[in-house]
Amino acid sequence: MHPSGLRLRLLGIDTLQEHVIYMRRDCHVCRAEGFDAQRRVEVTLRERHIIATINVVDTDLLAPGEAGLSTRAWQTLGAVANDHVTVAHAPTLDSLSAMRSKIYGRRLDARALDAIVGDMAAGRYSDMHLAAFLSACAGGRMDVQETIDLTGAMVKVGERIDWRRSPIADKHCVGGLPGNRTTPIVVAIVAAAGLTMPKTSSRAITSPAGTADVMETLTRVDLDMTTMRRVVEREGGCLVWGGALMLSPADDVLIRVERPLDIDSDAQLVASVLSKKIAAGATHALIDVPVGPTAKVRTEEEANRLQALLVQVAAAHALQLRVMRTSGAQPVGRGVGPALEAHDVLAVLRGAAAAPADLRVRALALAGELLEFCGHTVAGNGNSTARHLLDSGVAWAKFQAICEAQGGLREPGIAPLREPVSAARTGFVSGIDSRRLARVAKLAGAPGAPTAGLEMHVQLGDPIERGMPLFTLHAQSPGELDYALDYLATHPFVTLSDEGET
Amino acid sequence: MHPSGLRLRLLGIDTLQEHVIYMRRDCHVCRAEGFDAQRRVEVTLRERHIIATINVVDTDLLAPGEAGLSTRAWQTLGAVANDHVTVAHAPTLDSLSAMRSKIYGRRLDARALDAIVGDMAAGRYSDMHLAAFLSACAGGRMDVQETIDLTGAMVKVGERIDWRRSPIADKHCVGGLPGNRTTPIVVAIVAAAGLTMPKTSSRAITSPAGTADVMETLTRVDLDMTTMRRVVEREGGCLVWGGALMLSPADDVLIRVERPLDIDSDAQLVASVLSKKIAAGATHALIDVPVGPTAKVRTEEEANRLQALLVQVAAAHALQLRVMRTSGAQPVGRGVGPALEAHDVLAVLRGAAAAPADLRVRALALAGELLEFCGHTVAGNGNSTARHLLDSGVAWAKFQAICEAQGGLREPGIAPLREPVSAARTGFVSGIDSRRLARVAKLAGAPGAPTAGLEMHVQLGDPIERGMPLFTLHAQSPGELDYALDYLATHPFVTLSDEGET
Repeated sequence: MHPSGLRLRLLGIDTLQEHVIYMRRDCHVCRAEGFDAQRRVEVTLRERHIIATINVVDTDLLAPGEAGLSTRAWQTLGAVANDHVTVAHAPTLDSLSAMRSKIYGRRLDARALDAIVGDMAAGRYSDMHLAAFLSACAGGRMDVQETIDLTGAMVKVGERIDWRRSPIADKHCVGGLPGNRTTPIVVAIVAAAGLTMPKTSSRAITSPAGTADVMETLTRVDLDMTTMRRVVEREGGCLVWGGALMLSPADDVLIRVERPLDIDSDAQLVASVLSKKIAAGATHALIDVPVGPTAKVRTEEEANRLQALLVQVAAAHALQLRVMRTSGAQPVGRGVGPALEAHDVLAVLRGAAAAPADLRVRALALAGELLEFCGHTVAGNGNSTARHLLDSGVAWAKFQAICEAQGGLREPGIAPLREPVSAARTGFVSGIDSRRLARVAKLAGAPGAPTAGLEMHVQLGDPIERGMPLFTLHAQSPGELDYALDYLATHPFVTLSDEGET
Repeated sequence: MHPSGLRLRLLGIDTLQEHVIYMRRDCHVCRAEGFDAQRRVEVTLRERHIIATINVVDTDLLAPGEAGLSTRAWQTLGAVANDHVTVAHAPTLDSLSAMRSKIYGRRLDARALDAIVGDMAAGRYSDMHLAAFLSACAGGRMDVQETIDLTGAMVKVGERIDWRRSPIADKHCVGGLPGNRTTPIVVAIVAAAGLTMPKTSSRAITSPAGTADVMETLTRVDLDMTTMRRVVEREGGCLVWGGALMLSPADDVLIRVERPLDIDSDAQLVASVLSKKIAAGATHALIDVPVGPTAKVRTEEEANRLQALLVQVAAAHALQLRVMRTSGAQPVGRGVGPALEAHDVLAVLRGAAAAPADLRVRALALAGELLEFCGHTVAGNGNSTARHLLDSGVAWAKFQAICEAQGGLREPGIAPLREPVSAARTGFVSGIDSRRLARVAKLAGAPGAPTAGLEMHVQLGDPIERGMPLFTLHAQSPGELDYALDYLATHPFVTLSDEGET
C-alpha cells in the first residue's frame, strides 16, 4: 500500500452522517491508486482513521494536492485546515460476506453478528450496506437466537453503565402511537417514589417526535456520562438523550438509515430497545405495546409475537421485563410534535384542568405497574400510589428538580404558522389513521422543526358539525405547511361517518 | 408549493449516478421550505425534473442565491452555468409503501411492481432505497409470478426492439466463471451461418469483466439504436453495449447498487436477463449456466431451481428459452479482465495454435446448440456446423466485418505492470476458487482499468514444481497491484495438494 498525503481544504459540505472525501480526478493519489467516484477508501489523519466515499472533483474547487471532507468526516477526524491526510484503499470487510449470506437467507451466528455490528459501529458500512442489512433482517428473517446475539453484539460495541444498585427501572414504548408521551410523567412519578430511573431516550426514528426531541424543548438533554450520573445521584432520575453516551452506538448508526427508509422489524426493534436498556444498566424494564389498526403493532397476534421475542431476548441477557399492552386505536393527548407534546406533558404534571385525560391515565397505569414490578408497592397498589404522587404535586416537583439538575426548565415555544383544518361534513369521528397523521406532522416539519406538528381537537366517537376544526397544523416554514396541506388533500386521516357507534 | 429559483454554479463534483444538489444552509429556499442535509427534493430546469439529495454548504463554495449539482444531475438536466433551477419538496412516492411491504415479507402484484420499477427507472429512488429493495427480493423472497411481473415491468419502462423477422438468436451466461467469454465467438459463428444475432451486453456487475467491457477493448460498443440496426442489417449480428439503448433501463439503475453490494438473487437475475432479452427483441435465448463449487451456481439443485424459473418466466413472456449447463469447476481460457479476455477470444477466432482449447470447446457447444435451437441445422449437427464455420475462417471474417461495421477493429493493449505469482510448494493443482480469483482481478483494477486482471498459467490437475508461476497479475497502477498482492497474501485462490487425482 502506498498511502499518499493530501492537504485538507475546508469545503463545509454537510452530508449528515455519511463520510465523504472530495479528491481531484487528476490528483496523484487517485492516479496511483486507481480511485474513482463512489470508491470506499480509508482516510487517516494522525492516529484517527475513517472509511469514506470518494466524490471526484473535476474543477478548481480544490487546488492540486488538496482534498476536502464532508462536515461529519471533518469532525470525526478532528481536522483543521491544511492538515495532511493519507488516503488508501479501504480494508476488505470480511463482515460483508456474512451480511450477504444473510441477504441470501442464511442465519448468522454470534461471531458473524459481532463482526457486522463492530464494523457498523466503527462507521465502516456505507448507507447502502446498512440499508441492505436492515432490509435483509426485516420481515421475520431473524430467529430468536439471532436476535439474542444481535442484541449482545450491540451492547458489546458500546459503553455499559453499572449503577451498583438494584432495582434500576426503565420503560419503553414500541411506538407508532402519536402523542403517547408518557415517559416524562412516568419518570417523574417513579423517581418521586424514591426509585432509581435513569432514562435515556432516542430522537424520533420514523415518528414526528421521540422522547428526547420532546424533552429538548423543556431542558438540556445532551448530557455526558458524568453529568448524567450526577443528575441521577441527586434526583433518582433523569430524562436525557442517549445518543451522546455511546450506549449501543451501532443502533444510532442504523437509525440514520431506518429513518429515510421508514422501516423497522421485530428483531431490529427488540435488539435496538433491549441493547439500549441493557447498556444503560436497567434491571427492570416495562415495555408499553400499543395495539391498534394503524399503530406499529396492529393485531393481538403481532403483539403476542413481539412480546414473546422481547421476553426471550431479555431473559437471555438477565434483564427482567414486563409488557403492558395498551390501546392503539387513536393518538394520545392533543399535541403531536416535540413542543406540542411537551405542552401536554406539562399540563398533566401540573394537574391543569384542561390536561388530556387519556395521557394522564396511561402514564399512571405504566408508573403503577413499574412501582409494583420494582417491589415498591404490593401488587394492586401501584396505580393508587402513582396517582397520589401525581395529584399531590410531588411528581411535578421531582420533574422540575430533574430539569433543573439537567440545566434548567424552560417553556416550549409555539409555531408561528397555524392552520386549522375543518370537517367537510357533519357526522361522528369513526377512525383516525395514526400513520397518515404522523406523516402529516412530519411533512409539517416535526421533529426537525421543534414547534411543528399538529394539535388534535377531536377523538374517536365525537359528534362533529360541518366546519368544526378537526385539528390545527403547526409549522415553522410556509413550504412545510403547504406540503402538509397538499398531502392532506389526497390523504385525509380523520374518517367521519353517519353512525355514532359502530 | 413555493418552488423558488437558484442560479446554477458548476462545481464539477462526480458522485457517479447519484443526483446531488448543493445548497447553502442560509439560502432562501432552504429556509422557506425547511430543507436540510440528505433531504430528497425535486429539481426543475425548464421542462426537465430530477429527484436529488441535498448536501448543505456552510462555506462560500456557493454565493448567496447559487446552487450546485453533481455531474450526473447536471447532465440529466442539461444544465449550463447560470441556468436557474427551482427546488421543491420531492413528491411522495407511493411505490415506497409497496417496497416496504415487500421488506416485511408480503408479495407484490403487477401494479405494485410497475410502480416501483417506474420510479426506479425515473431516478426517483435513492441508492439506499435501491439497496433495500434488492436485499428484500433476494434469498428466495420473490415467487414465480412476482418474477414474471417484475420482468414485465422492467420491459415496459424501456424501449423494445421489433426486428420484424424470426428467429432472433440470443445467448447469455449467468456468470460467476472468470474468463468464460464465449459470446463474441458464438455471435461470429451464428451470424456467419446466416442467422440474426443482435447481441447487446452489459458491463461487469460484480465480475472483473462483462462482454461489453471486453468488446470495448476491440471496437466501439456504445452504439445508438440507429447505428446498431445498420450493423445488424448489414452483418446479421452485432456486439454492443446495451446501456445506451434504454432496453430495461431499470436494470441499469439496479446494477449501480448491485455492484457495490455484490449481491444478486435468482429473481433479480432472471428478471434482469430476460427483460433485456425481451426488450432486445429476441425470440430464441440460450442460457449458459456454469455449475461449480465456486461459480455463481454451486450445485445441480440450485441449477434446477434457476432453470425452472428461467423457463417459466420466459414462457410467460412468449420467449423460447433453452438452458445449457456447463462445468463451472475452474476459470475458462487464460485471461481474466477486459483486454486479457479479448486476447483469448481473438486467438480462438484466428485459429491460433496457442488458443485456449477450453474456451473454443465451450463456444462451439453453445453455437452448435443455438444453430439447432433456431432450426438452422437438425439436432445433432449443430456442433460440427459450428466447428466448420470456425475452422474455415468464416466466423473470423464475420467477426472482423461486425467490428468494422461498429467502428473498426483494434488490438487490445497490455498492462504496463505485470507480476508473476509462483507456487510455494511442489504438488498438483487441486482447486481454483473462482470467487477469490475474481476478487483479485478486481483489486488489480479490472474492469475499470481495461488491461488489468490476471493471466492463468495452470489448470486443475496440473503438476506443479515449487517456484513455477501459477498466474501473472496485470495492473495499470502500482496501488492496485499492491492491493491485489496484499489480498493474495491472506486469500490464495489456487490450492496445491500432494495427490494428482482426488
